Order: sequence, then C-alpha cells, then structure tokens
Amino acid sequence: MAVDLTQDPAVEELARRTAQFVREVVIPVEEREHGVARSEDVRIELQRAARQAGVFAPHVSAEFGGHGLDMLGRAAVFEQAGYSLLGPLALNIAAPDEGNMHMLEAIATEEQKEQYLRPLATGEVRSCFAMTEPAPGAGSDPSALSTRAERVPGGWRIDGHKWFITGAEGAAFAICMARTAGAPGDQGGATMFLVDADNPGMKTIRHIETLDESLYGGHLELVFDNCVVPDSAVLGAPDQGFRYAQVRLGPARMTHCMRWLGIAQRSQDIAVARAAERRIFGSRLGELGMAQQMIADNEIDIAAARGLILQACWELDQGRSASQSTAIAKTFCAEAIWRVVDRSLQLCGSLGVSGDIPLGRFLREVRPFRIYDGPSETHRWAIARRVLRQHDRAAQR
Amino acid sequence: MAVDLTQDPAVEELARRTAQFVREVVIPVEEREHGVARSEDVRIELQRAARQAGVFAPHVSAEFGGHGLDMLGRAAVFEQAGYSLLGPLALNIAAPDEGNMHMLEAIATEEQKEQYLRPLATGEVRSCFAMTEPAPGAGSDPSALSTRAERVPGGWRIDGHKWFITGAEGAAFAICMARTAGAPGDQGGATMFLVDADNPGMKTIRHIETLDESLYGGHLELVFDNCVVPDSAVLGAPDQGFRYAQVRLGPARMTHCMRWLGIAQRSQDIAVARAAERRIFGSRLGELGMAQQMIADNEIDIAAARGLILQACWELDQGRSASQSTAIAKTFCAEAIWRVVDRSLQLCGSLGVSGDIPLGRFLREVRPFRIYDGPSETHRWAIARRVLRQHDRAAQR
Amino acid sequence: MAVDLTQDPAVEELARRTAQFVREVVIPVEEREHGVARSEDVRIELQRAARQAGVFAPHVSAEFGGHGLDMLGRAAVFEQAGYSLLGPLALNIAAPDEGNMHMLEAIATEEQKEQYLRPLATGEVRSCFAMTEPAPGAGSDPSALSTRAERVPGGWRIDGHKWFITGAEGAAFAICMARTAGAPGDQGGATMFLVDADNPGMKTIRHIETLDESLYGGHLELVFDNCVVPDSAVLGAPDQGFRYAQVRLGPARMTHCMRWLGIAQRSQDIAVARAAERRIFGSRLGELGMAQQMIADNEIDIAAARGLILQACWELDQGRSASQSTAIAKTFCAEAIWRVVDRSLQLCGSLGVSGDIPLGRFLREVRPFRIYDGPSETHRWAIARRVLRQHDRAAQR
Amino acid sequence: MAVDLTQDPAVEELARRTAQFVREVVIPVEEREHGVARSEDVRIELQRAARQAGVFAPHVSAEFGGHGLDMLGRAAVFEQAGYSLLGPLALNIAAPDEGNMHMLEAIATEEQKEQYLRPLATGEVRSCFAMTEPAPGAGSDPSALSTRAERVPGGWRIDGHKWFITGAEGAAFAICMARTAGAPGDQGGATMFLVDADNPGMKTIRHIETLDESLYGGHLELVFDNCVVPDSAVLGAPDQGFRYAQVRLGPARMTHCMRWLGIAQRSQDIAVARAAERRIFGSRLGELGMAQQMIADNEIDIAAARGLILQACWELDQGRSASQSTAIAKTFCAEAIWRVVDRSLQLCGSLGVSGDIPLGRFLREVRPFRIYDGPSETHRWAIARRVLRQHDRAAQR
Repeated sequence: MAVDLTQDPAVEELARRTAQFVREVVIPVEEREHGVARSEDVRIELQRAARQAGVFAPHVSAEFGGHGLDMLGRAAVFEQAGYSLLGPLALNIAAPDEGNMHMLEAIATEEQKEQYLRPLATGEVRSCFAMTEPAPGAGSDPSALSTRAERVPGGWRIDGHKWFITGAEGAAFAICMARTAGAPGDQGGATMFLVDADNPGMKTIRHIETLDESLYGGHLELVFDNCVVPDSAVLGAPDQGFRYAQVRLGPARMTHCMRWLGIAQRSQDIAVARAAERRIFGSRLGELGMAQQMIADNEIDIAAARGLILQACWELDQGRSASQSTAIAKTFCAEAIWRVVDRSLQLCGSLGVSGDIPLGRFLREVRPFRIYDGPSETHRWAIARRVLRQHDRAAQR
Repeated sequence: MAVDLTQDPAVEELARRTAQFVREVVIPVEEREHGVARSEDVRIELQRAARQAGVFAPHVSAEFGGHGLDMLGRAAVFEQAGYSLLGPLALNIAAPDEGNMHMLEAIATEEQKEQYLRPLATGEVRSCFAMTEPAPGAGSDPSALSTRAERVPGGWRIDGHKWFITGAEGAAFAICMARTAGAPGDQGGATMFLVDADNPGMKTIRHIETLDESLYGGHLELVFDNCVVPDSAVLGAPDQGFRYAQVRLGPARMTHCMRWLGIAQRSQDIAVARAAERRIFGSRLGELGMAQQMIADNEIDIAAARGLILQACWELDQGRSASQSTAIAKTFCAEAIWRVVDRSLQLCGSLGVSGDIPLGRFLREVRPFRIYDGPSETHRWAIARRVLRQHDRAAQR
Repeated sequence: MAVDLTQDPAVEELARRTAQFVREVVIPVEEREHGVARSEDVRIELQRAARQAGVFAPHVSAEFGGHGLDMLGRAAVFEQAGYSLLGPLALNIAAPDEGNMHMLEAIATEEQKEQYLRPLATGEVRSCFAMTEPAPGAGSDPSALSTRAERVPGGWRIDGHKWFITGAEGAAFAICMARTAGAPGDQGGATMFLVDADNPGMKTIRHIETLDESLYGGHLELVFDNCVVPDSAVLGAPDQGFRYAQVRLGPARMTHCMRWLGIAQRSQDIAVARAAERRIFGSRLGELGMAQQMIADNEIDIAAARGLILQACWELDQGRSASQSTAIAKTFCAEAIWRVVDRSLQLCGSLGVSGDIPLGRFLREVRPFRIYDGPSETHRWAIARRVLRQHDRAAQR
Repeated sequence: MAVDLTQDPAVEELARRTAQFVREVVIPVEEREHGVARSEDVRIELQRAARQAGVFAPHVSAEFGGHGLDMLGRAAVFEQAGYSLLGPLALNIAAPDEGNMHMLEAIATEEQKEQYLRPLATGEVRSCFAMTEPAPGAGSDPSALSTRAERVPGGWRIDGHKWFITGAEGAAFAICMARTAGAPGDQGGATMFLVDADNPGMKTIRHIETLDESLYGGHLELVFDNCVVPDSAVLGAPDQGFRYAQVRLGPARMTHCMRWLGIAQRSQDIAVARAAERRIFGSRLGELGMAQQMIADNEIDIAAARGLILQACWELDQGRSASQSTAIAKTFCAEAIWRVVDRSLQLCGSLGVSGDIPLGRFLREVRPFRIYDGPSETHRWAIARRVLRQHDRAAQR
C-alpha cells in the first residue's frame, strides 16, 4: 500500500472513448449550435449518440444503467466530457442533474429512487436544485435560507422565493430546500423536498438572462406559493437539509471543476494550434517569448488544477467530508480555468474575440464559475476559518 | 510656469454637463436598449439630445461645430461620456468616427474637409477606418500591410482584404490604408484613401460576430476588389500612410482609454452601491475585508489610469509623438479597466452575471480592448524596445 | 489656467543637479559602503558634499537654509536623490528627519524652531518620531496608542513602550506621541512632546534587527519610564497629536514614495543595462519576449507611480488633506516599487542575488515599505471606507 | 490497480518522526544560530542528533546507511525536514550533497561509490557540483558550457571558470562538468569528473555574497587551471555529461521544491499563529477579511504545490524523464513558495521584517529559488516548447 497514480484501466479506457466521442460527435454539434443547446432535439440527439458510444451516465451505478465511477474515476472522464460545452449534456452529467443523481443515490428511499432517479439517470427527464434565493436569502451564506415549509395534514406547505435555479426550465421536478425549523441565520433546520413540476404551487417568474448561456434549462426565478407536497416528498430526514446539501455540494463542486477543466484544456489546445500556425514578426507566434509565457502558464494552471481535483476526489472516495480540500480545489480551479481561457483568447488576438472560434463563448461560460457554487471570497473565508480553528484546537492542547 | 493640475473652468463645466446629460438622458436609453444601439433611430435620438444639451462633438474645432477640446480637455469630458456605453455615440465621439475626425482635421485638404469632415462632425454620416487585415496581413504588425493600390489613369486601383473594420456597416465612407510602395514587411510605403461607400469595388463579406457588441456599425470583413478611386481620394501625401496612422493612433489610443475609463468608474459605482446596500454574514458587504480590498483596488486602478492618460495627453498637446507614454497608458488602462469591471462583477455575485445589471455586458465590451488598437503584448514589446534603444544610445555616448 | 505638467525651471535644474550629484558622488560611496552608512563619518562626508554641490536640504524653507520646495518640487528632486540608498541621507531628506522638519516648520513655536528645527535642517543633529508601539499598542491602528503622559507640576510625565523608532540611535531628540486624554481605542486625546535624548526617562531597550538596514540610526525599541518634560516640550496644542500626525503623515507618505521610486528607477536601469549586454540563446537578453515583458512592466509601474505621486502632491500643495490620494499613491507605490525591484533582480539572474550588484540589497530595503507607514491592507481598508462613506452621503441627498 | 493516495505506513512514520525531530531538536538550534549554520560544529551536532533520532539520510539506499526512499517517499519526508532551514543539513539531504548522492548511486562505479558516495552518505565529507559558469558560459543555457577537458596521458586536464558553486567551501570533492567535445552552444559533448578538493588545479577565487545565506558551504567562484585528473575520475561515460545532468536535475529540482515547501508551511504556521493571537481593530487579526484572504491563498498555494510535486515524483519513480512535470512543478513551487513567505511576512507586519521571527530570513532564502536550478523564464520557455512540439507531432500525423 503506497501512493500510486496509475489509472484504473477500465477508467482509462472510458476516458479515452469519451475523448474520442466528444471530438468526433459532440464538437461538430457544438459548432453547429454555436455552443448552446437550445432545444430538446439537440439534447436527445446527443444523448442517443452517447448511449450508442457506450459513454452515457458514467457516474450512475450499474443498477440505474451507468458505469458506477467513483470520484477519482469521474475526474478522468468528466474532464474529457467537458472538452466541449455540450459534452456533459451528451453524457447526462451536466449540472444540476449530475449532482441530483449523486444525492438521490445517497439519500432517497427505494420508492423515490424508482420514481425520480431512474428516469433522470436514463435521460428521460431532467431536474433542478432549488436552494439559492435572492438577497437577503440563502446564497453565499446558506444559513440565510428563508423559504419556509410548514406542516399541513399529510404533508407540507412550502412558501418562498428562489432564483438562479439552473436547469429549471423543462425540469420534471425540483429538489427544494426549505426551512422547517429555526429562523434565517440559524445553522440548521432545513429540509429537502421533491416537488413535481406540475405542482401548481411552484411557479416560474422569469428566465434570468446571464453572461453564460450553455447550462441547459437556463437559470429561472421561481416562487413557491402555497405549494403543498405529501410526506413522501421529503428527501431524507426532516431538518437535515444542510447536512445533505454538504453531501451534494462537495462532489458537485468537484464535478464542476472537472467539466470546466475540459474547457480550459480545449482553450489551450486552440491557442497552441494558433500559436503553431500564425506567423508574425518573422517567426511563429509560439516562438515569441510572451506567447510562450502564456502557453506555459496555461500548462501550469491546468496541471495544478488536476492535482487539486485528484486530492479532493481521493478524500471524498475515502468517505471523508473533504470540505477543506474541495474548497481549495474549487477556488483554485475557478480562477485558474478563467485565467487559461482568458490567456488563450489573448493569444488568438482579434480572432479570439470573434465568433469564428469559441473562446469568447468559453470566456462567458466560465466567468460565473468564480461565483456559482460559492464565490471565491466565501470559500477563502471558509478555508481561512478552518485553518484558524485547527490552530486554536492545537494551541489548547 | 510650474506643474498645475487645475482644470480649465470651461472644460470642467463641459465635463459636468456631460456627466449630467449621460446620467439623465443616455443611461435610460442604454437600459431600454440593453446596452447596444441597434438602429439609426437610437443614434439620431441620442445625438439630437446631445446637441440640445450643448455637449455634442466636444473634440471638433468650432469651425466644424464642436467645442475644440485639446487632448487634456477630452480626457475630462470623454470619461464622463464613457460612463454609459451609449454616451460616446450620443456625443459623436465614438470610435472610429472620433479618430477619423481628428485625422481629417490634421491632414485633409479643404475640399476633403468640406466633403468628409463636415457631415461627419455634425453626425449626418458615419465613417470607418480600413487598416486591419486577416493574418498574415496588417494587424499587431502594421508593416505586414498587404492591400495594394496601383496607379491607374487619373487615380488608383485598390485590391485587398480587410477585417475587423469597426463601424463599417452604414458608414458613408472608409479611410482605407493600402500599400503603394514596397512589400509586406517593409516599414513604409502606405497611402490612405477616402473611399465612398457606394464605390462598387468595396464590398462587405460579412458582419463578424464578436464578444463585444456595442460599437455602433459592428465589425465588418471587407474586400477591395478592383476598387478605383480618383487622385482626389488620396488623404495627405502618397506613401505617408504609416506616418499619418501614427497621427491617428496615438490620440485614438487615448480616447479609447478615456471612454472605457468611464465604464470602469460606472462599474465601480454600481459595485459600491451594491456593497453599501447588501447585507451578508451580519454586516454590510462593504464592511467585509475582501470586498473592501476589491473596492480599494478598483479605486487605485482608476486613479492610476487617470494619471497615465493625463501624462500622455499633455505630451500630445505639446506636439510630441508621445509614443512611449501612449503605449504605457493604453497597456495599463486596457488591463486595469478590465480588472475593475471584473472585480465589480464579482462584488455583485450572481446579480453581477445576470442581465439585471449591466456588468456582464461591460465585461464583454471591455475584454477586446486588451487586443484592439494593439494587443498588450505588442505594446509591451514596443515599450521595452524603446527603453533598450534609449539605453543603447546613452551607452554609445 | 489649465492643466500643465511643465516643470518649474528652477526645480528642474535642482533635480538635474541632484541626479548628477548622486551619480558622481553618492553612488561611489554607496558601493564602497555596500549600501549602508554605518558611521557618522559617512553621513558627514556625504552631507558636506551635498552642501558643496548646492543640493542640500531642498525641502526646508530658505529661512532655515534650504531650497523651500513644495511637494511637487520635492517629487522631482527626491526621486533623483533616492536613486541611491544614501542619496536622501546626503541631502538631509531621509526619514524620519525630513518628516520631522516638515512638521516642525508647520507646528513648532519660534523658540522650538530655533532649538530643534535649525540644527536639524543644517544636519548638525538628527531626530526620531516615537509613535509606533508593540502590539496591542499604536501601529496600523494609531488610536490604540497606550503611552500616557500625565500632568506634573510644570510639565508632564511620559510612560510607555515604543518600538520601530527609526533613526533613534544617535538622535538628539525624539518627538514622542503620548495619550493625554481618553483610553486606547479612542480617536483623539494624543499630544506630541519634544524629548531630548539625554532625558534619563527615555531609554533604549535594544536595536531591532530588520530585513532593511539602510535607514540611518536603525529601528530602536524604547521605553519612556517616568520621563518628565517641561511644558515647553509640548509641540503644538495638547490633545491635538492625532491631527498633527496627519499633517506629518500625508506628506511623509509621499516623500517615502518619491525616494523609493528612485530605487525602482535605478533597479530598472541596472536590469536594462544587463538586458542590453547579456547574450543568451543566441540573442541579447533584452530581445527575448519574457525579458521585454518585465522591462515593459517596470516602465509601466514606474510611470503609474509617478502619476499618482503627482496627483497627491498637487492636492497637498493646494492645502487639501489629500488623505485618499496619498493612501492610493502610497499603496500603489509600495507594491509597484517592490515589483520593479523584484523583476529587475530576476532579469539579472544569479548575478541579481549576488552582492556584485545592489539589487538583493534593494529588495531587502524596499520590502518593509509595504508595511511601514501603514500596511497596504490598512490603507486599502481606509480607501474603501472613504468610498463607501462618499456613497452613503450621496445616497442620503 | 487504481489511483491511491494512501501513504506507505513506513514513510508516514518516518515523516512523522522527522517532523518531531525538526520541531524538538533542529528549530532550537536554528533559532540559536539565527537560521544559518556557520561552522562544522553545528553541522556535526545536528547530524549526530539526526542519527540518534533515526531520521538520517532518508534518501540513500540501505547499503549506504539510509532509508532508501523513492521520490514519493522523499516528498513526504523532505518537506518535514525543510520545516527548518537547518533540517536538510541535519538529515544530510541538503543541496548539493543530496543530488550528488542520488547521481553517484545511479552512475558511479563500485570503486567510486566506496571512495565518494560512502563518506558522503554518512556525513563524513561534503561535496559540490561544479556546472554553472559566469556569462556567457553555462547557466540558464547549459549548452553554453565552456570549461574544457583535454586528454592527457592517463587522464584529463580541465581548464575553465565556474561560479555559484554551492557548498564548495569545505567540500571534499567536486563533480565538475567540462566539455570534452564540440564547442559552446553544442547540445552534447560534456563529461563529468570527480575532482578532489586537494587537487592543486582547482582553486577558489572568492566566496560570492548572496541574498541567501543558509546553504551550507556557500556559493564559491572557482577556477580549474591546468587541473589534471586520472581516468578513474570520469563519472560514467565520456561525453554523456548532459544526459547525466538530467538524471541529477529532474530529481534535484523536486527535492528543492520539497525542502522549500517546508519553509512555506512553516511561514504559514507562524502567520496563522500571529493571526490567531494578535488583536486589532477590535477583533482577532485572523477574523479580518484581508488577512483571511492571505491565509487562504497560502493554503491554496501549498496544496497546489504538493499536488504538482506528487505528480512529478510519481513519474520519476516510474522511470520516466518527467521533464515536463518537473519543470511545471519547479516553476509553480518556486513562485508559490515565494508568495507564501511574502504573504506570511505581510501578515506579521513590522514584526515580520524584524529579526524576532524568521520570516525576513526565509524571504531572503527562498528568493533565489526562482533563479537557481533554472530561472522561471527558462522553464516556461521549455514548457511551452514541449507543448508546441507535441502539437507539431500530432499535426503531422
């Protein structure tokens, strides 16, 4: 027993096939659609092709039709899927469905799994995760949760206001986080509910326009207004929602990183191809020192991001909370991926900001990652606090 | 005679009125149009209002209906105009018209001024500057110019390929840079030509989609194909085009900086308002250290940008070439303005990437400034070369 | 009346002569002494030479034997003096004497000026400014001042603990800041006292070793223990010490920036000379892109620093408090100068860290400037707070 | 077989004991000696203690008295040793001896191992590696090697000029790199020679003063002047020196990173302790956002550095050249470690630049690491070139 970075051959093979599938099948569709799947037709076309290629649903257990990858396995495969903006959708590992499947496998009852997880895992339906609220509600500070669920005979009544609910348009159900105890600011007291899309108490206010556009199903603003759900809609135990959210959030943070890391690598490959071909000032662009510096910095950022993802995924696979290592990896990756896309675009000059190549699109898509799933500032605050608490505990001994 | 930063009262008053006009008249239109003027109606509406407010064409000499500001005066007024994406269009100081007017005043014959400058200065028509070519033509390296103009009886025939010609859609004429001597790579041998839009030899290939969208008239790809112009179309003297380009480029660099600095200040104001109002983790956002750091860094970047613009403008007003100080200012401003918009967006969190506030739009608009008008890397190369040449000359003494 | 950056010819001439004096006279001494004046002999030698060269005490009024430069004049001359680590000592404009002279001219009585300012201005004696205290006393937060002065018949008795008292070794007197009202944490209630070095109540505990070594007279830790001074030792009015400290601190911040900017320019000149001469990988070092990037970034940082100093000095000369612009300039300069020295050293490779050239010494000397005179973090906090207050005031209207 | 980050229990135990030894035994000596061992007494004292603690020579094979750690094992143990500036000396894993032992085990004949490796491994003697030459010789560009070795009867005669030969003072022998074929600029043709310290042809010119001072035996400038060595002094085969240098340099780069990473962690621990104890502006320093940002950024940098070292070490242990991953790790680590020390010092304020805590010393010691063992710029150039070559090869297929 010792440190070993040798990849599991089965994982390696799946990653290799995913890479091939994305290059041969997905990127042509991405180019045709200018990076954004705007209809179910595209989703269905891509997911059918992924099933045919044997790369569909790599993260779901075999029982629900997937490859059953652990987090380390996902790290290898998801990065390859993320090499195209539409790769995750094709493999059915896009946010928020991927994270919801992860949580449902971990927490749901058998009945809930059959009703919600199975059709989600096959791509028959989609879902969303309704946690974030407009200020001053739950956001960077989840404990500010103000959506409430009150007991009613045989179930619960949910009332509240949510926004930035990714993938909500066309989703068959939402996992809604609501306060069942305590008041905004309290650390506990949240419960997760499965809410069907046809529940008349869950209403769409609007589609929020955002800088990014590629997350399928958009970002909606919703209200829960006298939204009654049965007892069977409770996911896990009441009042344990914040704990479950951590179950979801740690891995979800990492899968975001994996997918966006694919876009970083793609950006670098586009920039390197450009640097290899473009002649300027009498030599190849890639022979000029400032271009080399950007290429090298991209390489360093990508390698460091991979290393941090690896560490965090290994801890998660060991059953640890990994809250520090996922926070570190998420913060670094969000900023490093952003830098890589930005440098790659710069290397391509005017071409880079044009629609002729996808770097301008990528820049728009990755920018929010420094905010979504916790702004970098919130993660830094949490990282520093853990370090200080660790110091305090050691000092007391 | 000594250093004095006291603003000319007339300039100060014009800047003040411009600021008021932008806030009261332009920003409501900007909000209505989501930041981008997509029709002549909007342009005409805004320019009429600017004339009524007495803030139109601040840079043009009185002879042509303007306020005759020198570069230092423009620095004060253009920043205020740039506080809205549509402010420069309203004042008729948007790129590329503003730079073209500057150059026409400096170089054109009286006849050319009457024919081209006067209607441009009044906003009756618009123009474009056709210099940039697709690789491997003129771009970061202007000497790579490959569009050619050959002598024909009574005039010239221009053949070549241009792209990223800003404002070309709907422009009444283009100032086209073509090689009349030497070969691509030679430092001299370019001539500027005034080409009317209805010349059948100048054809639009396509509208180039770009990350930015607010520059009125877009970025077009053009061909000059057997494009014959009369002798009177020559702007200035033949073969002096590169020298004239410098006449245009130094000031144009600075006016870009001034306008975008307005957007930086606007971004900061939006972020500060958010930081003042948003409560999180039990206090105002603006009382949290990491938010304060971003606010302070914005303040520092904006102040430093202003100082560098001031220095370069003063040199230009003194009649100096100012190539070093404009390159320094342009490089710093393009990067600092980008940082300011990026930090401001980060301070606003999810709201920042939404269409509810314009920061995502601003981010898209300012990103290309690190590439347009010379990528930062080209400017850094030129800055370093001048320092080394200065050293070499001093060492030889 | 309009913006004009033309330098006063008399200032320009003094700056020119200072530059020449530093290159011809001071730098040879600096090299001989390895950057640090360790004896009165060196100080006396250098100051005598400066007097002969007519460049001594440029900041002191003519009444006390100086050139009477305002802040803008100092900006031009001090940067030239700062081109050598020993230049400021030679001209008698080193910290803390320079700031003390500034304050004494502004606040002291005629008797105090004759007794303390005159010998200080001529270089006959030196002084120190005893404000900073070990934690949890006055430091980044001046209001934490805990040294106390109590009324005794005919005077005051000072008790307290000070450290990092620059220049204290060999100083003829200290200006000691002590609390005469209120308690640590209160915003007011401080008084400044002139304490002669032979007062038995002021005792040196130790010489604090620091990364920097070039500030003449070192950094001492002192105690005031039953230190009795007469009423005539009060500088200005009682309880007004914090206000006077601002009188001293704003200009003193700027003169620090000016002096260290000289070191930044010197570092750049050394690096550029190296880049011009060193051949590597088949070309001059200065022709390699990454070297050019560092050279250009140095040039940009230096130019931006000059612009911010100019703005702040002009405001100070106008009689404004300039607290925002001096905080901005100090924060930017401290970090920019550090970057310039660091890049210059990097450009020189192994030679750069060797004692053969002074860049390693410069790196040690400029590092503390990001902490002394207020750490960058404290300044950023203050900058952001002023922006927020300005917003709050505007919002209330 | 799959990715596993579980540490070998024996390695973990050795790392734990090393950590304890460094804290209990080495740091008190470091504090007593102000960070720099200036005499053999200190070295002997420390190495004796390390032997007693059973942590001596962890990298050497059991045959020569060590623990036989592979690179991954060294990563764990060397970081713990590097927690004190004197830890590596105590364990006999300081540069350049550690790298020399590594190379001698790999290349030397049995006789050479007995004569040179065995006494080196036990700490009886020390050694140096004489490769670097003053400009324009071997440095960032090793192929510029200009020291020559000519055949003489029964051996070789070496003539040349070396500098920055670390550890040379008091070394029992040098491994000297000299050109036996070709001319400066050629990629091959170097041979390594074992030169005894008492060889009259190897002479010390001077001790080079440097910013760093803790590398035992200093940095010397040497000349090889008519320095005759027997055939048995050839290490490995003639003309293969550059290849062997790679054998040494890859691992040596990594062990530098491991050791300095220990200093980064120590700096962070010092800063965190300070942030936990220091009260300012009414709260703990560590509760202020800007302090938390620095603490978090340190944590992120350290974690990313560890991940990159792990990846490179694993590749080296697999017998791969690992030239890309070691270059990436070295470049990132050198800069990240520097940032960590710099931020930690900033967090400690004036105390940080004082000799009361070792951060100023650490800053001096780590700065040259961005230059030694290849400046960051040279590594970036090599990293980018490999990426481009990889692209070119893929494009040709």
